[in-house]
Amino acid sequence: METEPLALDAKVIQALSGVSTATLTTVLLKKGLRNVWLRGTRPLTPDQPRLVGRAFTLRFVPAREDLATPASWGSPISTRAAIEAMPAGCIAVVGALGVTDAGIFGDILCARMKTRGVAGLVTDGVVRDLAGVLGTGLPVWCQGTAAPPSVAGLTFVGWQEPIACGGVAVFPNDVIVVDADGAVLIPAALLDDVIAAALEQERLESWIMSQVEAGMPLPGLYPPNEANTARYRAWAKANDTRG
Amino acid sequence: METEPLALDAKVIQALSGVSTATLTTVLLKKGLRNVWLRGTRPLTPDQPRLVGRAFTLRFVPAREDLATPASWGSPISTRAAIEAMPAGCIAVVGALGVTDAGIFGDILCARMKTRGVAGLVTDGVVRDLAGVLGTGLPVWCQGTAAPPSVAGLTFVGWQEPIACGGVAVFPNDVIVVDADGAVLIPAALLDDVIAAALEQERLESWIMSQVEAGMPLPGLYPPNEANTARYRAWAKANDTRG
Amino acid sequence: METEPLALDAKVIQALSGVSTATLTTVLLKKGLRNVWLRGTRPLTPDQPRLVGRAFTLRFVPAREDLATPASWGSPISTRAAIEAMPAGCIAVVGALGVTDAGIFGDILCARMKTRGVAGLVTDGVVRDLAGVLGTGLPVWCQGTAAPPSVAGLTFVGWQEPIACGGVAVFPNDVIVVDADGAVLIPAALLDDVIAAALEQERLESWIMSQVEAGMPLPGLYPPNEANTARYRAWAKANDTRG
Amino acid sequence: METEPLALDAKVIQALSGVSTATLTTVLLKKGLRNVWLRGTRPLTPDQPRLVGRAFTLRFVPAREDLATPASWGSPISTRAAIEAMPAGCIAVVGALGVTDAGIFGDILCARMKTRGVAGLVTDGVVRDLAGVLGTGLPVWCQGTAAPPSVAGLTFVGWQEPIACGGVAVFPNDVIVVDADGAVLIPAALLDDVIAAALEQERLESWIMSQVEAGMPLPGLYPPNEANTARYRAWAKANDTRG
Amino acid sequence: METEPLALDAKVIQALSGVSTATLTTVLLKKGLRNVWLRGTRPLTPDQPRLVGRAFTLRFVPAREDLATPASWGSPISTRAAIEAMPAGCIAVVGALGVTDAGIFGDILCARMKTRGVAGLVTDGVVRDLAGVLGTGLPVWCQGTAAPPSVAGLTFVGWQEPIACGGVAVFPNDVIVVDADGAVLIPAALLDDVIAAALEQERLESWIMSQVEAGMPLPGLYPPNEANTARYRAWAKANDTRG
Amino acid sequence: METEPLALDAKVIQALSGVSTATLTTVLLKKGLRNVWLRGTRPLTPDQPRLVGRAFTLRFVPAREDLATPASWGSPISTRAAIEAMPAGCIAVVGALGVTDAGIFGDILCARMKTRGVAGLVTDGVVRDLAGVLGTGLPVWCQGTAAPPSVAGLTFVGWQEPIACGGVAVFPNDVIVVDADGAVLIPAALLDDVIAAALEQERLESWIMSQVEAGMPLPGLYPPNEANTARYRAWAKANDTRG
Repeated sequence: METEPLALDAKVIQALSGVSTATLTTVLLKKGLRNVWLRGTRPLTPDQPRLVGRAFTLRFVPAREDLATPASWGSPISTRAAIEAMPAGCIAVVGALGVTDAGIFGDILCARMKTRGVAGLVTDGVVRDLAGVLGTGLPVWCQGTAAPPSVAGLTFVGWQEPIACGGVAVFPNDVIVVDADGAVLIPAALLDDVIAAALEQERLESWIMSQVEAGMPLPGLYPPNEANTARYRAWAKANDTRG
Repeated sequence: METEPLALDAKVIQALSGVSTATLTTVLLKKGLRNVWLRGTRPLTPDQPRLVGRAFTLRFVPAREDLATPASWGSPISTRAAIEAMPAGCIAVVGALGVTDAGIFGDILCARMKTRGVAGLVTDGVVRDLAGVLGTGLPVWCQGTAAPPSVAGLTFVGWQEPIACGGVAVFPNDVIVVDADGAVLIPAALLDDVIAAALEQERLESWIMSQVEAGMPLPGLYPPNEANTARYRAWAKANDTRG
Repeated sequence: METEPLALDAKVIQALSGVSTATLTTVLLKKGLRNVWLRGTRPLTPDQPRLVGRAFTLRFVPAREDLATPASWGSPISTRAAIEAMPAGCIAVVGALGVTDAGIFGDILCARMKTRGVAGLVTDGVVRDLAGVLGTGLPVWCQGTAAPPSVAGLTFVGWQEPIACGGVAVFPNDVIVVDADGAVLIPAALLDDVIAAALEQERLESWIMSQVEAGMPLPGLYPPNEANTARYRAWAKANDTRG
Repeated sequence: METEPLALDAKVIQALSGVSTATLTTVLLKKGLRNVWLRGTRPLTPDQPRLVGRAFTLRFVPAREDLATPASWGSPISTRAAIEAMPAGCIAVVGALGVTDAGIFGDILCARMKTRGVAGLVTDGVVRDLAGVLGTGLPVWCQGTAAPPSVAGLTFVGWQEPIACGGVAVFPNDVIVVDADGAVLIPAALLDDVIAAALEQERLESWIMSQVEAGMPLPGLYPPNEANTARYRAWAKANDTRG
Repeated sequence: METEPLALDAKVIQALSGVSTATLTTVLLKKGLRNVWLRGTRPLTPDQPRLVGRAFTLRFVPAREDLATPASWGSPISTRAAIEAMPAGCIAVVGALGVTDAGIFGDILCARMKTRGVAGLVTDGVVRDLAGVLGTGLPVWCQGTAAPPSVAGLTFVGWQEPIACGGVAVFPNDVIVVDADGAVLIPAALLDDVIAAALEQERLESWIMSQVEAGMPLPGLYPPNEANTARYRAWAKANDTRG
Repeated sequence: METEPLALDAKVIQALSGVSTATLTTVLLKKGLRNVWLRGTRPLTPDQPRLVGRAFTLRFVPAREDLATPASWGSPISTRAAIEAMPAGCIAVVGALGVTDAGIFGDILCARMKTRGVAGLVTDGVVRDLAGVLGTGLPVWCQGTAAPPSVAGLTFVGWQEPIACGGVAVFPNDVIVVDADGAVLIPAALLDDVIAAALEQERLESWIMSQVEAGMPLPGLYPPNEANTARYRAWAKANDTRG
């Protein structure tokens, strides 16, 4: 039933670690993808590093008193079992229906994820026990915190299935990048194209920024007209450090 | 992957066809179930009959431009394939994330469902081509209508899985009852208990209504105190038609 | 604790029965009152007559499992007791926090209100058992219908207190007018002023409408400039039927 | 400041009058346009005919007590002046910020629009004085009704400017089609392409519907595989009535 | 009219000061209480201590221009009078209808509450004059800040009545616990049971956390199976410091 | 088409720099203006200084795939051209329809605004590339951050037009004051009156605060009764430093 997790090439992680989610969403929009931004996934603390990893998905449906009980935590289909299936380096992406009054995970589950080498947790829901979760050191992107347990609002139904998270369709093994702005999804099939375009976009924008800092006005510069494109290309050629 | 559909005993259908969703939600609440009402599932026309059937579930996630395309309608995992798997007498329950600006089905899909003997369609989304859908004669409970096709907002991912619909967890083969108020879910495991309690509740409330029509005030009557309970029981004994 | 209900002069009822809620909100806005329209109070059926009456208020807070139970329906502070305190001719205004997934009243309570001569029911919530409620003949303005009982979402706490209904502050004995557009509140203290201005506004607008039907353009007519004001006054003088 | 209104070719009106908004949104999505459906624009009565016309836009901003007053109705920039600038045959599209507690127009303004030959009114807001507006015979698509005047929530600022309506960017003279489902926008530049594709899509879907009614299952039919495409083409060739 | 405030036993305060709101909501859910979490009550600053106290309730309805005026601040039923009725040690719980564009209190009222020994302020609304409120040192849990005075959106109507706050029914003298996650309510009648269960839950979870830190996987540990329960009990017995 | 920007008197800036937005909204409400608070305009960082300036408005409508493209950034009607028209000292007020999933500006545009001497940026939308924007030093008030570019959700249509921002009507050259609470608008025509009243209100409230700190209860003090008004006037006379 669940899709097998895949590893992500270290070169991909390294390349994307230097690219902002702002640049990635621009590049993806140019390829026709306008709905790849996971709404409501803010960093739990301001200093969390940019992360890159494959999505390991978890899926919730609403709570039903006969299903969402503390007893259900011991069932074979449980968040506990899902966590034990997470490979090191993945980013857990949890579809929580945008519920903000029941925390999907607290300190114990986050601690176990950290131990297993999970890179981070991204959800359109919230976590519980803020102090405890921060104590585990697991980087978390979410809508905030709420004390009630998940079963107060949600029933867990499976992992590594396609999910909705923050208004975006996330499939198992899609690539996720998160930074201070939040989380963006790169469809697995587009990965190579996106990386190439993103590195170029980052370089162009950093050159434009240097021109703005030097006092140039925006029209003709951003986006660059023919003359400025030529200037940029000359600069890029002279400063090519990509070897 | 998908749960096998089950038939529903004709006696169950007959018994529940005489019970309002208002009575059923009262009975379920007394058993501790407070979240079994599918929000946003209104009858498309005011004269649709009460329906009883097992849930055949369909699941959508949000649209992604690389996935939700007209071309996807031909894929093996498509709403088309799901419809061909629906047994006669089932109620299709479609989890559409509450999306109201993309219609999940139009006239063609509804016509095919009608042909296959599907009892009705219940969704927290909307349908498209109102005139066409009404023309098929398929009873529909939904949030309304919108012209855009499903792929403008949604990506179909599977059937007979647990879904969220109207804020309720619906599992394949749960029992659904819909009437002029909307749709209620009865967990399969509670079915017998609920039927017995519901028939008694209907009888009690109809007796109370007769007393109100006769001019009795509410306190002590609804719910009945000891004296009125005795009067009701005497009436019930004298009028027992259940044989 | 509760404010004593007051009767409403039959002349007031007669005068306001000829004035639309559109005219009343215009008149009240000219007096500086911009928030007197009870949002979400739509007629349950399209043919309900315009009603005028004093508000008899009921107040709910959210459900709490230890408080909002079927057993609570028998407590001294219950909707049942509140209904028995309603005088004939009042309009029951129920503050239901805008909750749309639990019906405040069903057929039995509406039947009793009808028997007691209550003029109508206005709420920012919903009713349950649509067929049953329509059967009682009680005119209802609300957000729609839902099957679950009030205790699935609400706890009743008192009557004839100040309440919030549809984003408006309603005090016991404020005057309510409802028609096909919905419900407007007239603060008791402004009643006489409002009636006089409203009758004049209705007369002016009906004259303007006759001019539009005769082909006059809007600028200078609505609102009328000096010349048109003079024409209107002449017409009004010639057609004064108010004795 | 305002864009000059343009007339719409009678042949365009005739062609589009036979095409549903469901078909148009499908055709536009295939051309990459996913956001052309004006949310919240429902027909005020169920029997309003399909309309086709160029958009004549009106723009509101929120109410401010020093600006949005009954006195402002007489200013040169007023809804009254805008109505006098509307050409016969246009569809007035009013950006009302989705405000549902202040009616943009009542009976007098709608009557004047009807007199001037305006084809219909489309808004993401509401109208006031339901009975009066219905009496004018002007077809209206909106979110419903509310009694308060526009100045209770809105300030009018101009006409024939780009506006937001129902989450869609509407530019003066874009083409609007409205039917029982609601309103769709066709960018003026895409008109010819859309008409051709829409007529073909309608024909294809009506053939598919005939096959469904004859009992064919959906996979391979909708969308048609190679064999069914061939069958359709043969049928279309044999039944070509387009001369 | 108002319920008399009650003191809270110092032992209760001490016991609950060591229990997180996450633990309390878990314990309450096990007792069947799923709706005791006050949504939208976030700490105004991250370093506010956990507080425990009885609720002293205040109730607002929406603003009405004839009622909600600066002059009303001097009326006998005013927030000022309510503050003077607050006992030391209470937690003021203010039902503000979730209004976020009018601040219920600013620096002056917060300063007076601090002087009177009020433990903290909890509301589903916002406060105004952030710098001023922080200057008073009163711990505040709320939805944020807004400059406009309460009368821009709210009318104060009474204190020590049942209220709605953050979607929860709060009765005078219910016990409130607030920490970094937000605010939870303990019904007065359940207090002793909850304390006992909460202390045990805290101890169990801290043992589980120690096991996770030691590398144990989750299944069978959280919740503990029979073997782990035995291990926990042995540890608990050996480490019982409760006397 | 665009309104010409106006400068703001340095004395106005100086006077208002000492007045909180809380005081200004109180003063404006007393003059009948209840809707001048721009909802959802929070400081991007907690330490941003209070700013005073005239509004330079920018207006967006929703995205349409044929209009909102990266290519559009080079059109004559672009955010780039708008920024080049901004005078030093203005506050850019951007109506972004409350869109939170597409950032209106990133580091490059903010850097250019900073270079041009723009005092600050206020929007009901969000910015993108948080780290980059903070690096420019431009003070920003907004709803938060999102990575996607503006064209993912918005189409830019013009500047120095009347706009909606945070539910408020903002006209070019209205005066804006922003501080830790958010942004308030002062209609240009009311400026002198508001300043005078605001300075007096600040002085009165600081005296009241001193009395509260000295232990005085609130009733009779805030607002002051006759005796306290006399005491205040005596203090004010003795401490008048404005002479």
